[in-house]
Amino acid sequence: MVLHSLGDEYFMKEALKEARKAFEKDEVPVGAVIVCNETIIARAHNLTETLNDATAHAEMQALTAASNYLGAKYLKDCTLYVTVEPCNMCAGASYWTQISRIVYGARDEKRGFAKTGNSLLHPKTSVSKGFLEPECSGLMEEFFRSKRK
Amino acid sequence: MVLHSLGDEYFMKEALKEARKAFEKDEVPVGAVIVCNETIIARAHNLTETLNDATAHAEMQALTAASNYLGAKYLKDCTLYVTVEPCNMCAGASYWTQISRIVYGARDEKRGFAKTGNSLLHPKTSVSKGFLEPECSGLMEEFFRSKRK
Repeated sequence: MVLHSLGDEYFMKEALKEARKAFEKDEVPVGAVIVCNETIIARAHNLTETLNDATAHAEMQALTAASNYLGAKYLKDCTLYVTVEPCNMCAGASYWTQISRIVYGARDEKRGFAKTGNSLLHPKTSVSKGFLEPECSGLMEEFFRSKRK
Repeated sequence: MVLHSLGDEYFMKEALKEARKAFEKDEVPVGAVIVCNETIIARAHNLTETLNDATAHAEMQALTAASNYLGAKYLKDCTLYVTVEPCNMCAGASYWTQISRIVYGARDEKRGFAKTGNSLLHPKTSVSKGFLEPECSGLMEEFFRSKRK
């Protein structure tokens, strides 16, 4: 059994709001928030097309914004909520921040870090997966369905 | 036998100049340049301490700057020269850019991507390793020796 804090649902819904902003910009709909002491300190959504930058994933922007907010390189006692399983780059980025926890929604079997293994994460980082998965993966499916039309 | 283009030494020396800028700022001395058509289109050095951002590796900045310069997400026909073996995050970032080639100097046995495996790189990316390794690793050793004093 995986225990979730009372706020997990609330914060993942905030990440979903970010994902919908990406969707509206015709970006792959991934959203993220970073929470410290029950407060959202960073929020971001995928902007790879808008910025013409393949590294502008929601997580990368959120990690940088959270460090900027805290004035600290390490995201101790912080949780990253992200609507889709992070890729290798974003998992590798989370390693450097030593973030305490990652909660993600939809699995990404092709590009998700789990395929490579948990060795990408920092030993201090715990992971909760599949949180609000139907909503998170539903948004992705809707996006890719609209692309195939 | 690994064949290097005539410019490899020149461009790695430019990356080393970037690494020395990092050293002077008391940053772990890693430098990078990205080259397209024999022209440097991006240059960067590690700024994790200066920016209080654990993701501000030389390679990440260079990849974003190169995409910005080209106005393109994909770094086709580009080479990343970096003085130290990229970490998992930076290898994962290079994947998304589909960069044609990575040339690196010093090996990083603890944090380098090679430990995780070439699966982090895009199939279109070729790698030349150990280029100007003595200079690149010498700078790293000098930095960490100065820290232990």
